[in-house]
Amino acid sequence: MNKYRDYRPEEIWPLMRNEELVSPTAGMCDGFTQANLVILPKKDALDFAIYAQRNPKPLPLLDIAEPGDYEPKLMAPNADLRTDLPKYRVYKKGNVTDEPLNIKKYWQDDFVAFLIGCSFTFERALIDAGIPIRHREEGKNVPLYNTNKDTIPGGTFKGPMVVSMRPIHYKKVVKAVQVTSRFPSVHGAPIHIGDPPRIGITDLDDPDFGDAVTIREGEIPVFWGCGVTAQLAAMKAKPEMMITHYPGHMFITSRKDKEYSVL
Amino acid sequence: MNKYRDYRPEEIWPLMRNEELVSPTAGMCDGFTQANLVILPKKDALDFAIYAQRNPKPLPLLDIAEPGDYEPKLMAPNADLRTDLPKYRVYKKGNVTDEPLNIKKYWQDDFVAFLIGCSFTFERALIDAGIPIRHREEGKNVPLYNTNKDTIPGGTFKGPMVVSMRPIHYKKVVKAVQVTSRFPSVHGAPIHIGDPPRIGITDLDDPDFGDAVTIREGEIPVFWGCGVTAQLAAMKAKPEMMITHYPGHMFITSRKDKEYSVL
Repeated sequence: MNKYRDYRPEEIWPLMRNEELVSPTAGMCDGFTQANLVILPKKDALDFAIYAQRNPKPLPLLDIAEPGDYEPKLMAPNADLRTDLPKYRVYKKGNVTDEPLNIKKYWQDDFVAFLIGCSFTFERALIDAGIPIRHREEGKNVPLYNTNKDTIPGGTFKGPMVVSMRPIHYKKVVKAVQVTSRFPSVHGAPIHIGDPPRIGITDLDDPDFGDAVTIREGEIPVFWGCGVTAQLAAMKAKPEMMITHYPGHMFITSRKDKEYSVL
Repeated sequence: MNKYRDYRPEEIWPLMRNEELVSPTAGMCDGFTQANLVILPKKDALDFAIYAQRNPKPLPLLDIAEPGDYEPKLMAPNADLRTDLPKYRVYKKGNVTDEPLNIKKYWQDDFVAFLIGCSFTFERALIDAGIPIRHREEGKNVPLYNTNKDTIPGGTFKGPMVVSMRPIHYKKVVKAVQVTSRFPSVHGAPIHIGDPPRIGITDLDDPDFGDAVTIREGEIPVFWGCGVTAQLAAMKAKPEMMITHYPGHMFITSRKDKEYSVL
């Protein structure tokens, strides 16, 4: 069990701000919504808003901050997006140029921050519904795969959809669809069930990001859209500057996972 | 029954383009999704995207067109947003200055068109679930009310939420919540049930827009967010130029209502 499981978000931000806590956020602040972060200059922000709006399965928007605002007033009042994540990735013209612990020196007055739903929210709902999450059981990162499914282009952004995979017992697949369908703002329903080559995945043991997990007898691989899609799109669109969270090192908001259920 | 009920969208657009058809669109092209239209210059578009994203109950985004694009390629290929609605409203600095049948002479290369979900979609779902819609039965426009509930400000946009009201028999209110909850991209679940003064509405017989409808014995007034919220926000934000559909005269897309159910 994560030692920060029962921390509140406002207790954990200062630890990250002071760089005492630089580890992946899975399991921290149980019940609070974690989010993908994408920061772009204002001139690219409308394009990205269009792109995300068109691709809610991989890129469900939770909030767009006002231009120049590094306090996400709606999702996490008093937090600072420049310092309160454990680790960041800085892209210049599509290439990773830095992986810093804060982005104070990179911040620009015209930056627009996007907070995007994260699968940690629906994993909590799956666990509550009696559906175990294999990569958590095995203490690994969720396996992620590039697919042959293209996202819908928006502005300068386009590219393949990246998906996460969870093996689910065949008796619980329907329940998993129902539970995650209720959370459209954190990836929603699966995008594929059961036949990975149909979406261009040939070897489940060789994920493009994250770790391979055990698939047991009677389990079906189930795939959900993943926010890493934004990072691939950025590598193609090559905006002058883009900053994201470091994979697995998410932003922890003050909102509760349960708020995002539509039914 | 509307005489255009069984028309396909691509059959009805030319009638509007030629100004042969200038009437409200309720009941036209049954099963196809109708949308609110908001057009803004690019410099105001990111602000409006932020505003709508924060207020999905009144302003659920269906699509944002690329800057300069008047063909909504995703929602309605081959349609022309400058001509294919029956009637428009032109706002300059927050005041209505024209209500033309097309907006060709107003179109600017930097215009960004937003398509926003419309309650006609969930009304179809309610009817299919055995819940009649009073204003349709009475051949009226849906009654709309200003409320004392503020929207969450976004950029320069802010203001009160406008709601629509449908009287629903007390035995069917729960079902109405369930049915509309499945359609978050077309206003989703109600924002209030049963006690109109709580949201600042003192006289149901005196709607701020649309027509009053009969509320029968045993019926509860149920309120949903409404896209007219955008027009009130525009009157406050006073963008140099903003164009919307004329109330009730929606854009008919090529997408099916059923596509928007999350479960």
